[in-house]
Amino acid sequence: MSSTFGTTLRVTIFGQSHSEAIGCVVEGLPSGFALDLNKLQAFMDRRAPGKNRWSTPRKEADMVRIVSGLNQEGKTCGAPLTALIANTNTRSGDYDELRRIPRPGHADFAAHAKWQGEQDVSGGGHFSARLTAPLCVAGGIALQVLSERGVRIGAHIAQVGTKVDEPFDAIDLRDESRTHLSRQLDTLACAQPEGFPTISKEAGNRMRDIIETARAQRDSVGGMVECVAIGLPAGIGGPRYDGIQGTIARIVFGIPAVKGLEFGAGFRVASMYGSQNNDPYRMQDDRPVPTTNNAGGTLGGISTSAPVLFRMVVKPTPSISRPQSSVDLIDKRDATLEVRGRHDPCVAPRAVPIAEAAMALALLDSWLSFPPAPRFSPIQR
Amino acid sequence: MSSTFGTTLRVTIFGQSHSEAIGCVVEGLPSGFALDLNKLQAFMDRRAPGKNRWSTPRKEADMVRIVSGLNQEGKTCGAPLTALIANTNTRSGDYDELRRIPRPGHADFAAHAKWQGEQDVSGGGHFSARLTAPLCVAGGIALQVLSERGVRIGAHIAQVGTKVDEPFDAIDLRDESRTHLSRQLDTLACAQPEGFPTISKEAGNRMRDIIETARAQRDSVGGMVECVAIGLPAGIGGPRYDGIQGTIARIVFGIPAVKGLEFGAGFRVASMYGSQNNDPYRMQDDRPVPTTNNAGGTLGGISTSAPVLFRMVVKPTPSISRPQSSVDLIDKRDATLEVRGRHDPCVAPRAVPIAEAAMALALLDSWLSFPPAPRFSPIQR
Amino acid sequence: MSSTFGTTLRVTIFGQSHSEAIGCVVEGLPSGFALDLNKLQAFMDRRAPGKNRWSTPRKEADMVRIVSGLNQEGKTCGAPLTALIANTNTRSGDYDELRRIPRPGHADFAAHAKWQGEQDVSGGGHFSARLTAPLCVAGGIALQVLSERGVRIGAHIAQVGTKVDEPFDAIDLRDESRTHLSRQLDTLACAQPEGFPTISKEAGNRMRDIIETARAQRDSVGGMVECVAIGLPAGIGGPRYDGIQGTIARIVFGIPAVKGLEFGAGFRVASMYGSQNNDPYRMQDDRPVPTTNNAGGTLGGISTSAPVLFRMVVKPTPSISRPQSSVDLIDKRDATLEVRGRHDPCVAPRAVPIAEAAMALALLDSWLSFPPAPRFSPIQR
Amino acid sequence: MSSTFGTTLRVTIFGQSHSEAIGCVVEGLPSGFALDLNKLQAFMDRRAPGKNRWSTPRKEADMVRIVSGLNQEGKTCGAPLTALIANTNTRSGDYDELRRIPRPGHADFAAHAKWQGEQDVSGGGHFSARLTAPLCVAGGIALQVLSERGVRIGAHIAQVGTKVDEPFDAIDLRDESRTHLSRQLDTLACAQPEGFPTISKEAGNRMRDIIETARAQRDSVGGMVECVAIGLPAGIGGPRYDGIQGTIARIVFGIPAVKGLEFGAGFRVASMYGSQNNDPYRMQDDRPVPTTNNAGGTLGGISTSAPVLFRMVVKPTPSISRPQSSVDLIDKRDATLEVRGRHDPCVAPRAVPIAEAAMALALLDSWLSFPPAPRFSPIQR
Repeated sequence: MSSTFGTTLRVTIFGQSHSEAIGCVVEGLPSGFALDLNKLQAFMDRRAPGKNRWSTPRKEADMVRIVSGLNQEGKTCGAPLTALIANTNTRSGDYDELRRIPRPGHADFAAHAKWQGEQDVSGGGHFSARLTAPLCVAGGIALQVLSERGVRIGAHIAQVGTKVDEPFDAIDLRDESRTHLSRQLDTLACAQPEGFPTISKEAGNRMRDIIETARAQRDSVGGMVECVAIGLPAGIGGPRYDGIQGTIARIVFGIPAVKGLEFGAGFRVASMYGSQNNDPYRMQDDRPVPTTNNAGGTLGGISTSAPVLFRMVVKPTPSISRPQSSVDLIDKRDATLEVRGRHDPCVAPRAVPIAEAAMALALLDSWLSFPPAPRFSPIQR
Repeated sequence: MSSTFGTTLRVTIFGQSHSEAIGCVVEGLPSGFALDLNKLQAFMDRRAPGKNRWSTPRKEADMVRIVSGLNQEGKTCGAPLTALIANTNTRSGDYDELRRIPRPGHADFAAHAKWQGEQDVSGGGHFSARLTAPLCVAGGIALQVLSERGVRIGAHIAQVGTKVDEPFDAIDLRDESRTHLSRQLDTLACAQPEGFPTISKEAGNRMRDIIETARAQRDSVGGMVECVAIGLPAGIGGPRYDGIQGTIARIVFGIPAVKGLEFGAGFRVASMYGSQNNDPYRMQDDRPVPTTNNAGGTLGGISTSAPVLFRMVVKPTPSISRPQSSVDLIDKRDATLEVRGRHDPCVAPRAVPIAEAAMALALLDSWLSFPPAPRFSPIQR
Repeated sequence: MSSTFGTTLRVTIFGQSHSEAIGCVVEGLPSGFALDLNKLQAFMDRRAPGKNRWSTPRKEADMVRIVSGLNQEGKTCGAPLTALIANTNTRSGDYDELRRIPRPGHADFAAHAKWQGEQDVSGGGHFSARLTAPLCVAGGIALQVLSERGVRIGAHIAQVGTKVDEPFDAIDLRDESRTHLSRQLDTLACAQPEGFPTISKEAGNRMRDIIETARAQRDSVGGMVECVAIGLPAGIGGPRYDGIQGTIARIVFGIPAVKGLEFGAGFRVASMYGSQNNDPYRMQDDRPVPTTNNAGGTLGGISTSAPVLFRMVVKPTPSISRPQSSVDLIDKRDATLEVRGRHDPCVAPRAVPIAEAAMALALLDSWLSFPPAPRFSPIQR
Repeated sequence: MSSTFGTTLRVTIFGQSHSEAIGCVVEGLPSGFALDLNKLQAFMDRRAPGKNRWSTPRKEADMVRIVSGLNQEGKTCGAPLTALIANTNTRSGDYDELRRIPRPGHADFAAHAKWQGEQDVSGGGHFSARLTAPLCVAGGIALQVLSERGVRIGAHIAQVGTKVDEPFDAIDLRDESRTHLSRQLDTLACAQPEGFPTISKEAGNRMRDIIETARAQRDSVGGMVECVAIGLPAGIGGPRYDGIQGTIARIVFGIPAVKGLEFGAGFRVASMYGSQNNDPYRMQDDRPVPTTNNAGGTLGGISTSAPVLFRMVVKPTPSISRPQSSVDLIDKRDATLEVRGRHDPCVAPRAVPIAEAAMALALLDSWLSFPPAPRFSPIQR
């Protein structure tokens, strides 16, 4: 069992929902980087719970405390960076029944089968969505590093229930259309403080209604997040198992609730013809650029300089307070469960910064681990 | 750049489309396993090119030669198993133009950007779909080992163009419905010799028409493959980054042409409510079993004993002979390309055994690396 | 740069000498293990500084705080275990001069060359011997798990300066000679509270004199530690690069000050004949046992059931307060350095529990990752 | 069980002594490198068996066949490079008795315990010293790449039995003393064709007598190899578990027969004082250089620009034809063994190119994976 990912930039996530602390260790950051802690905290605040009606009433300040990895000027020093977040607002009593009656759709039974009943069940233990907080710490740092390298990353709620947002414009050429995708990202940046990032305001309002209705009915609802990265140079990544798609996939499928992932035109390619799907090139400033972006910025596992674009789907929160059919693991009989505890009625809004964190970690690790090869030459010293 | 995946069961894929040979090294197989080489070759034949109108006219026998890893009784001996497949039917001349004019939708330009023009362009080099042959060697071995452990794996062409096949019945309980999924797999097993595995014969006929039409129009068409594994016990895998979903994803996104992957209800969960999507449990033979399978057999990265089910989408083959807009990398100008060479008009049919290979490798590695934990106890000796 | 090791049992060490905290994350522990925290703290106390004349005057309580990885009964729960140790007694002012004048024999200049001057120089930063404290946390846990599995590990100061201790009896058969090695380990267990573990009391006294003399002369002195593990079954480990020797070596050479490592007869084999060095077998209780142990318990990377035995040599502490020739990195000129700060005059005494920790981590990971293979058979369910 | 090592430069070794072929896959080589195949074969010839009285009479041409990884100009193309060496001169009948009676000092019993009797026993299977041939292929390639980067690597037989060669001069400053170490390497280069590389001709002659005597007495004798690398820049490697020492150790302890490894002053540091052992710096051409080299070129896991120097000890070949005490694994009784087959009476001579290969692979991987960090700065594009 590994809670670690990455090749050069290695991230280990630790903690349980109700352990003393949660956190992460990040190895392999470039040294000498002056981390902006206020900016990091602002990024964390976008994910933090308890701020509005569409997230769990559990309140956590999610203050990030960095206990190693910075030198005395506050710059990265080459040693592993460790960040801690205290768990303060825990109510373990809520979970006693879950020890014997697993929640449908949650990892309770799977964890029981794996760990023979020794797993920490309180609040979902290591499987809790709370563990996305340290992922966002690591990702928030990666976002700052990538920003210095000219890469801009943004995401939005692409769907809640049956309501869809306006999609990202997949291409970002150096002309008017660039303005379009960039303007979409500007819109989202403005939406962030309110915590409900959609491109279309109307779509956002409708989605909030859908979530509110689900909550009122003691139910939850699924959603989708779309994420884009602009400015990644061509030639990053590699063929096969450490490619851009696979590297993103490994992190994204480690986010609780994710059930699907697609790049560029994604599942629509099933019904497309090659003559439609292939992205033609044209020469611009002496460099080839794709003029459409069905590929989502990556071919053969390698970046093409077009925006990297993925969509991930998140299932409805499994913890709902309606009565559900389950089993009693001790008495070996059928049982009915009404989940108590505090839960988001929809995962999608808080999954937006998480998607950005995943994108940033995958791209920065790919860049550090599998950069464009310099042409071989004897090294002059 | 890594062409290796797996934790305990480690597979390295090597070769280029026109190198002397392609092949794989498989480390970590259980020792003492009597490999059935005829069965392996029969599995390879399902992927092999040149057998019918809907695959490339390049003919390759794809005879597997195992040069290490077996003891003198032909059983696995603990040492790495190496398999070679000779490249015989190569026509490098077809690819000279591609050195300077990258094919839209193919990895040519990305590889050029990464390797500074030193990549092997012939036949797509290391990026060629031909490299799925050694993946099938490794996967064919894993399928045999899993079969001995009671796991049955099958896949079908779920979609070509706009035509969809009947879907797998996602659940396989020990009653009539089991019969249904098992009968679907029996149907597919019969379809294999003909090389066009669909559950519905009518859907298969229509898909073949779509492919034939695309080919006649010097075009190609996309598709989707659905794959299922029955019989995996609960408790395999682990939370976060080495979970069942992530392990499958890493291999699947290493298959050329794949642009999306979903598990169970997949992208449909975006518009579902928790009360619909959660799979209720019931007690059967003193073990909890999910009565529906929207989760696709995995929760929190861990198997639940329900069938593991994924769908992967494959884009239309990028190499089409219609004129396409591209660029000349040497002269730094726009250019028009008409791809020659021999190519499948649709990737989906040959992707069926490839999906099964990917599923088998991911599940066997998960089982060997992250098995259900025995309850801790002092070891008696 | 990686501060992580291990395959199934993965340990990440973090922290700097003067960061807020140091610690470790341990992934892959068997679940359901009831950790004895008092025993762990007692093990830590053997390494802790500031207790006597032969160690640094820097006092650190080294209280271990476990912030994740245990369930509510205090048992391992499958999630990563994270331990923190606060740095309390730091005096960064001592190190200002070292920013520009690297200490001979220390990592200062190497770290400067690697991190371009951004490394944390205070107290040696991530290179400080203080980072062996979290290694001992992880190792102390592994020792407890191995103890339950019947493995006993012990180490002693084999040499300080020119004075050598009585060596371990390399073999531990089930007869009188067992008594001998076991009695040696009993002797050492008694010596621990005093913190100077030698088998011969006379040798220990002489070594202390040597260390005291070195300290009085503002100098330091080297030493050697010998470590043994009894009770490991045959068949653990594997050929080549994940063998017992290599796994131990990777951890041991990650301990600051180690410059050499040997197994069994070690460097003496250079002048031995095969007829002397080969360990003959005899049959005992229907199992083959080696009757001598020049191999140090491992052949071909795999355990043989004989005691695993290694010796590691540690250089004299580089930080001495005598004037030494160095350079000024800023002014680019020769310079003279007198190191201030608080340092052990000899590394060997505190390296004894560190060697045991390294042995325990290597053997437990080998056991979990590369156990004796069960004969292949279909799994009955 | 893993036969793979390396981080960016990953090498997988496969094959058994009597399998159809042995070989290696090398991933992560810089692309565009024009491999000199004649030079590679000449390097292989230094290791090849059967050429003189002090090596096994088994003759193998060890012709290297590269089946993937080169483009059509014979340059590395980014894809994994695979090399094969055929096994031609096998006599499996020699080993039938070994199936039941393990050779003392060899891996036979350990492998039996691990693989439950399913291991390939012929010729030692995967444990055979023959598997050092593919290590030399990978290492020979790394030597060529490092040579282009200004690094020179050489090794010599430092000891056979009690006879020692003149040691390397550990330091190589840009003055007369450089001439000394360089001259030593020149001497060894001249000695290579004859296959007995010592610095002192007299020592070499005496060693050959010792080996010849051992062979005449149906015995074998141990030895030591010393290896040095000149020209590695400072700042390569990293703290703790991926340091220069640990990276070299992992490969070296994967070489059959190695029982010990030391760097620089090695085991002598046990009896040294800090004031003796610390290597003072002086400023030369505006760069700090160590004026002695007790550290063996590495501090804190990072290169210092001084020569990297290690010594590895190899035990006497375990396969000797004298009668030895062993056991019968089937009949569970004591037994006497007289090993037949063809074996080197001393491993050391052929271990010289193997040590160079290990050094080259470790240093090139360290350079590619853990290079000196560029100072952080936004990337201009």
